[in-house]
Amino acid sequence: MSRIAYVAGHYLPHAQAAVHIEDRGFQFADGVYEVIAVVGGRLVDEERHMVRLHRSLSELRMAPPMGDTALRVVLREVIRRNGVVNGIVYLQVTRGAAPRDHAFPKSARPTLVVTSRGSKPPNQRLVREGCSVITIPEIRWARCDIKSVALLGNVLGKQLAREAGAYEAWFVDHDGNVTEGTSTNAWIVTADGEVVTRKTDNAILSGVTRLAVLDLIHREGYRLSERPFSVDEAKRAREAFLTSTTAAVMPVVRIDDAAVANGNPGSLTEKLRVAYLGHAAATA
Amino acid sequence: MSRIAYVAGHYLPHAQAAVHIEDRGFQFADGVYEVIAVVGGRLVDEERHMVRLHRSLSELRMAPPMGDTALRVVLREVIRRNGVVNGIVYLQVTRGAAPRDHAFPKSARPTLVVTSRGSKPPNQRLVREGCSVITIPEIRWARCDIKSVALLGNVLGKQLAREAGAYEAWFVDHDGNVTEGTSTNAWIVTADGEVVTRKTDNAILSGVTRLAVLDLIHREGYRLSERPFSVDEAKRAREAFLTSTTAAVMPVVRIDDAAVANGNPGSLTEKLRVAYLGHAAATA
Repeated sequence: MSRIAYVAGHYLPHAQAAVHIEDRGFQFADGVYEVIAVVGGRLVDEERHMVRLHRSLSELRMAPPMGDTALRVVLREVIRRNGVVNGIVYLQVTRGAAPRDHAFPKSARPTLVVTSRGSKPPNQRLVREGCSVITIPEIRWARCDIKSVALLGNVLGKQLAREAGAYEAWFVDHDGNVTEGTSTNAWIVTADGEVVTRKTDNAILSGVTRLAVLDLIHREGYRLSERPFSVDEAKRAREAFLTSTTAAVMPVVRIDDAAVANGNPGSLTEKLRVAYLGHAAATA
Repeated sequence: MSRIAYVAGHYLPHAQAAVHIEDRGFQFADGVYEVIAVVGGRLVDEERHMVRLHRSLSELRMAPPMGDTALRVVLREVIRRNGVVNGIVYLQVTRGAAPRDHAFPKSARPTLVVTSRGSKPPNQRLVREGCSVITIPEIRWARCDIKSVALLGNVLGKQLAREAGAYEAWFVDHDGNVTEGTSTNAWIVTADGEVVTRKTDNAILSGVTRLAVLDLIHREGYRLSERPFSVDEAKRAREAFLTSTTAAVMPVVRIDDAAVANGNPGSLTEKLRVAYLGHAAATA
């Protein structure tokens, strides 16, 4: 089955799917996106992704490309045309194509691009044995709460992780606290069993998987503190993990050169991982 | 004459000039650019633009799309095919198209896009009467020395300026100092006649027009200090101005609600503006 992409009103063969060179997504990073998990052919946490998409658009004062009902139809049609049962659907909205000028164009139609692909579940060895993260200085802009395509800082961070043989890089702010990973949220479990993750502010994205895990923590009655944690605190933690649409809940067993606890995935992390997979299967 | 754009090896009608939806310039802002002035059909300060382009590419560890000689040929060919005598040539290089993944792709061919258009000289009323700037908090990333297309912060700033009826917005860092404008460098002349502009660091772009004006200042023997200046200092200045490829040297006569000096363009600004236009005409 050849891949099909939706681009501004048309379903096109993937190889021919293109946007204009003056699309503001290409020239100015003037666009936002969502990555939604597909499980059993259905969208996971669709509602929360739609809410976040609208928040990103609103913060950038960007018009939605179409009504929500139509958008949900397009997402499903792209999934269907690509025969995706388990994988992801990617959607990107930009302010559209216009003669190059930094300020918002007076008239431009937002560009909507949607793709979908099957994917295997996260690397099972990493899930079983845990992954490594490195820590790097936070260099990104002050509005990481907006899920924009201005991802160059994330790209450079992920590349550093890759070269260090790590799965992810955690950004560390001026106060020595972890903000988030380049494409994941960061979590620890303290020595006395409290789950800690940074409260959402302008420095991090409100991850949809993060919200789902918070729900599970509340449901199960685990102790939780939404507050910043430092790299030192993370290295001394009993457990650490990260969350994202594609990684789900992934144990972290090494931070820079330090093993987290005994270097094995933590038991609470494993409980949350299993609970999250159940949630994803159930809501889809 | 219909417009022609160069895209990855082809000269195409502007309306059909497109890049793939998985181009990393579109999905990750993983690209850099230059805007070069064209005067009398020739490139102004071409050498400095090429040096800066290579620095941006190098900082992002991105391969050049072709050798310099070939690139210079393409720039000239796009200018020629568009019949541009006075205007600009725009070039953008991205890391290329690859399946979406933050880290650098193992194999991707850099994408080169080149466009050119004629343009009138800067608005003559603004040149004569001076322009207004507003000041806004610096929200951009920590590597504004790289001329990347991750311009969303610049876009939002320019839009705020537009809505305030101003020509430009100056970003102000945590220390209260001006970094630069959204697409221009910022300058003042102090009460005792010293020209002040921020020294290049990771917070600002090394503007090519900025470098040309520094040369003129040295040539003419004006006093210069490359150091940060605060918004308060700028409001108390004798003169203020901004520089860029498209604005050349533009007097600033109002900063937020404060007139600069008597609200008219300064005499040293005017001397530098005339000298810069002479330089642009001579080097082209």
